[in-house]
Amino acid sequence: MIDLPKGFQLAVAAAGIKKPGRNDMAVVYSKEPCATAGVFTANLVKAAPVMLDMVRARYGRGQIIIVNSGNANACTGAQGMLDAREMAQGIADELNVREQNVYVCSTGVIGVPMPMQKVRPAIKELAKNIGTATVEDLARAIMTTDTFPKMSSRKLNIGGFKGTVTAVCKGAGMIDPNMATMLCFILTDFDVEKTVLKAILKEAVDLSFNAMTVDGECSTNDTALIMANGAIENPEIRRTSEGFKEFSAAVNEVTMELARMIARDGEGATKLVNIKVNGARNDRQARIAADALAKSLLLKTAIYGGDPNWGRIMSCIGSSGASVKEERVDVYFGKTKVVSEGLSTGKEKQAEKELKGKEVDITVELNLANGSASALTCDLTEEYIRINSQYTT
Amino acid sequence: MIDLPKGFQLAVAAAGIKKPGRNDMAVVYSKEPCATAGVFTANLVKAAPVMLDMVRARYGRGQIIIVNSGNANACTGAQGMLDAREMAQGIADELNVREQNVYVCSTGVIGVPMPMQKVRPAIKELAKNIGTATVEDLARAIMTTDTFPKMSSRKLNIGGFKGTVTAVCKGAGMIDPNMATMLCFILTDFDVEKTVLKAILKEAVDLSFNAMTVDGECSTNDTALIMANGAIENPEIRRTSEGFKEFSAAVNEVTMELARMIARDGEGATKLVNIKVNGARNDRQARIAADALAKSLLLKTAIYGGDPNWGRIMSCIGSSGASVKEERVDVYFGKTKVVSEGLSTGKEKQAEKELKGKEVDITVELNLANGSASALTCDLTEEYIRINSQYTT
Repeated sequence: MIDLPKGFQLAVAAAGIKKPGRNDMAVVYSKEPCATAGVFTANLVKAAPVMLDMVRARYGRGQIIIVNSGNANACTGAQGMLDAREMAQGIADELNVREQNVYVCSTGVIGVPMPMQKVRPAIKELAKNIGTATVEDLARAIMTTDTFPKMSSRKLNIGGFKGTVTAVCKGAGMIDPNMATMLCFILTDFDVEKTVLKAILKEAVDLSFNAMTVDGECSTNDTALIMANGAIENPEIRRTSEGFKEFSAAVNEVTMELARMIARDGEGATKLVNIKVNGARNDRQARIAADALAKSLLLKTAIYGGDPNWGRIMSCIGSSGASVKEERVDVYFGKTKVVSEGLSTGKEKQAEKELKGKEVDITVELNLANGSASALTCDLTEEYIRINSQYTT
Repeated sequence: MIDLPKGFQLAVAAAGIKKPGRNDMAVVYSKEPCATAGVFTANLVKAAPVMLDMVRARYGRGQIIIVNSGNANACTGAQGMLDAREMAQGIADELNVREQNVYVCSTGVIGVPMPMQKVRPAIKELAKNIGTATVEDLARAIMTTDTFPKMSSRKLNIGGFKGTVTAVCKGAGMIDPNMATMLCFILTDFDVEKTVLKAILKEAVDLSFNAMTVDGECSTNDTALIMANGAIENPEIRRTSEGFKEFSAAVNEVTMELARMIARDGEGATKLVNIKVNGARNDRQARIAADALAKSLLLKTAIYGGDPNWGRIMSCIGSSGASVKEERVDVYFGKTKVVSEGLSTGKEKQAEKELKGKEVDITVELNLANGSASALTCDLTEEYIRINSQYTT
């Protein structure tokens, strides 16, 4: 049972947006307005609710998140924006909150108008249900092809003030039929200064969700929101506060845990893959090489097949854009060194054992300088193709 | 039956590099030295024969190509370079040609030393067999996962001089277990000035093989070579010659035809996909958007599933890096317009019919300026995963 931070209440409802009977809408409500920050998709094609939320996040305040699955409200034009506004206004009126403090998130099919005749009554029901849902109910209501709900929580004691950081997210490993949409909501009852909150969220997302592949395409709807309501009445956490490090570490931990859950829940995935690149010219180059490996279909299929195919790694980093000197490269599967100074160590058979488990570690040492980066990914299987070729708009 | 240009002779042999009994080595031999140009992989990890050929191509001369399949001679260190040199020297001695005029090409497994004890006797056999092989024999000897041999030819009459441009290539659509290696040999009996030949080859490769996806990774061994021996004794073709346009058009045609064969022969592919992006800010931006679409797993699986999922197209171009204004975008499957000014036209059912055939045309009009680009790709199927996960080093 994952704890909800103090001062927050949740509700879920079954609007029947795509399938009847399943909870597909949810509300996060804080009794008091919260410091709020958001990180949004870099896609130029943005869903209506994303455009709405981006403007609101600039002010750093929020009190409600209303979310639906089954329809992305993306590529829906002017009507889409009216619908997103109506969702915000609807729940704001019901709960007597300023409409500007409502964030709207949607995930699902692109290009289909929101079925507002189904959404309107569900909003009333959500308001009625407020306080009756658990964190798991929320995590389940936002699932699309996820095979399990994704939640993570940390309890902290900062200078005698005991509070909680709890996060839920949705998203399935590699890429989602609904365009890889990743939604993440982080809630805390600590009081945190809003610009600090924004910086902490940005760093956490960069280290977790942005280091997880995905196939280079970000969705039209990706959104991560953090809300801090200060319900435990601690002294506001600022960059110079004693508790700053501890609090931001907790946010990093929950987002990393969720990112690993997403990679593990990759569509059709059988293995979680941790990629580490060290010794690059700089961190940026290490990131380029690590991302290229995490996206490589050839590497992902080799891992699925249990094949320590280091040739695919050499070729992939060589064409990644990062500086690589073949004769300096070492490659490890788990603890088994398969490549030393660019040449086979002859330990392919031993390396096969490192590919047997549910989790595979691949380390590439470029031996050029000190840049390093990590990436999370999963293997690529026939099941992925099946899921994505049978999904229809 | 594809004609071999005058003055060239071919040979094939079964060295047994990977599997016994199958022709896995070949030689292209010109009685006279040729103007020769090459385009090589941009991968920083280059196979030994590629490094050898790159130096030779700078001089613009050549007389022999010796090629093997089954072993890439990549990531093989100093020994790999000695082996490539030995292959060149071996066939040069047998055929009494300057060793510097020999090009070596290899395709196959990475990181395994060349089995020279098998290669050496095969070189003698190749020399003995010279003149006995057909163009199709050559095309077959260089196949790896290709399911059919790839050849194309054009006959030209330039100012009364009748000659031939014939090309063979190997490579299987999306990406090859042998690291997507693409080999292409273009032979002609026209006399062409060597710097002109280089420019013509470069342009032809950019428009064909480089506009074909592949997954962004170029292999350690990709090589395109063109040899012009002047056996028909035409006046040398220069940039200002009357025949320049006609000759370069023929080279473009054969490489385009081969690129389409490669895409059609994608591993596990069931459909060839022609992607066209028009109206981009400039050609470079159109190329970025077209390549992103050609690489999109989501689009490729949707096409496999016969699903005109234009939402995946909108999201993909939006995150491609190209300038996109959602409200200006039109999208067509075949002749059916599914998106008009960023919104659904409601013709999804009709568009499904455009996905029934063996070939699918997708056109994206960005309506920003005049940049355009094309890309070739194929759909992504379970069979692709099967091929690539079961291949072992």
